[in-house]
Amino acid sequence: MQVIQKIEELRQHITHLKDNSLSIGLVPTMGALHNGHISLIQKAKEENQKIIVSIFVNPKQFGKGEDFERYPRTLQTDIDICQKAGVDILFTPDADEIYHNDPIKILAPSKSGNILEGARRKGHFDGVLEIVLRLLNLTQANRAYFGKKDAQQLLIIQQMVRNLFLPVKIVGCPIIRDSKGLALSSRNRYLSKAGYEQALQIPLALETIGRKIMGGEYCCESLKQIGLESLRQIEVDYLAIVDHQLNDIKEIKKNESLILLVAKIEGVRLLDNLWI
Amino acid sequence: MQVIQKIEELRQHITHLKDNSLSIGLVPTMGALHNGHISLIQKAKEENQKIIVSIFVNPKQFGKGEDFERYPRTLQTDIDICQKAGVDILFTPDADEIYHNDPIKILAPSKSGNILEGARRKGHFDGVLEIVLRLLNLTQANRAYFGKKDAQQLLIIQQMVRNLFLPVKIVGCPIIRDSKGLALSSRNRYLSKAGYEQALQIPLALETIGRKIMGGEYCCESLKQIGLESLRQIEVDYLAIVDHQLNDIKEIKKNESLILLVAKIEGVRLLDNLWI
Repeated sequence: MQVIQKIEELRQHITHLKDNSLSIGLVPTMGALHNGHISLIQKAKEENQKIIVSIFVNPKQFGKGEDFERYPRTLQTDIDICQKAGVDILFTPDADEIYHNDPIKILAPSKSGNILEGARRKGHFDGVLEIVLRLLNLTQANRAYFGKKDAQQLLIIQQMVRNLFLPVKIVGCPIIRDSKGLALSSRNRYLSKAGYEQALQIPLALETIGRKIMGGEYCCESLKQIGLESLRQIEVDYLAIVDHQLNDIKEIKKNESLILLVAKIEGVRLLDNLWI
Repeated sequence: MQVIQKIEELRQHITHLKDNSLSIGLVPTMGALHNGHISLIQKAKEENQKIIVSIFVNPKQFGKGEDFERYPRTLQTDIDICQKAGVDILFTPDADEIYHNDPIKILAPSKSGNILEGARRKGHFDGVLEIVLRLLNLTQANRAYFGKKDAQQLLIIQQMVRNLFLPVKIVGCPIIRDSKGLALSSRNRYLSKAGYEQALQIPLALETIGRKIMGGEYCCESLKQIGLESLRQIEVDYLAIVDHQLNDIKEIKKNESLILLVAKIEGVRLLDNLWI
């Protein structure tokens, strides 16, 4: 595995891969890798000849007062994980090579980029698109892999690819959970043991909603009530039921609906969701 | 030559070209083709195996009250010109396929995008980048060709390519002039015979400035005075001397300086410039 920090060096590798018509799968991450990331790498390996993982804690997607400084950085462990997972190139750029002065700016869609997570984290999705677009261009990936846990992020990235006609396929991958059901996230390590126990109510609430839908309850208002009922003991930021364009819906439609749940435990915002 | 209107059809052709490792040269235009465009096509043919010309009168780069409606549309003549010039694909998309609802937005650099032409045409360069980025992505061109006449546009597009790490080379091509020296532009046809005669003062002024520089005059203030003196009879919008980052400069530096002149004749803004 090559660990590459400099953009110019990455470009030389990409030119070589492209000259040899090798397909490239990209897994963009902020490091602190866990089994969720590993599942993305595995999926990428099934579908591509060469795998690039990027690790970049992207300052532009953190707002003021958010956890940019505190965000876990575990590079040596991440290198070991990537090596073991069969990654070909691990790209760990510096911010001053990625972002220039007085640059072109990318703005997330004014509607879908400013609701839900976007309403609570101003400019967050602009920052996400800024980095993802650069990484897609730099790596010339044929496919790029994102977890469904960050559902709104996935949908907005897919929208960018459609809007700008980027020559890449965005692959959304299933949420990976720990043995007790909590969706894996690099931020879970912020939780105390008590906080972790509380957090388990999040997947339980989604499971309850999912069972109700299986049982024929399609009314979103009722489903939300059921969900909030089971979440009474924790601070729910939002529980929303939307379609894949992130519009609120009144009734569940199979393969078109998405239940988004964010709760705050010990100051940590935890995201989870259910794709119906 | 293939004339293609639909994006899906273009994509199939591009996939085929890429599968066969053929290099692609793109010449993006708004149609009303003249010898300036033909020189871009010729340059593209020297450097690439397949040539795509796009014709799209891009609504996003016209401001309110500008000449979007009036802009010359001469498709049949353009097709003949492209055919004769040996173009492989002529791409003439519809606006409703190029632009979607609630899209990702691209903003030109806040400094270089809002001075000179950008100060006079609010949002103009945002619109230019919106279309150029889409065309570069759609065609996956190895090289794209732009005239040096639109100097600020060329420099901002080059900046976008650097900022976003687009895998394309932007090639700036020399200004093509008519027999009397006027820089070719699709908008020249708006001029009356008298207006055309007046317009010839524009290249003459630049020629005078160029001769002074050859003679050793490097002081930009003096050069501007000399230029404006010779332009007394027409309405000068601006005469600026800048470096390639579009910063005003006090003294000419060889290979780093640019003299930008815009004059308004019969309501038509005419751009010309000199790369030193």
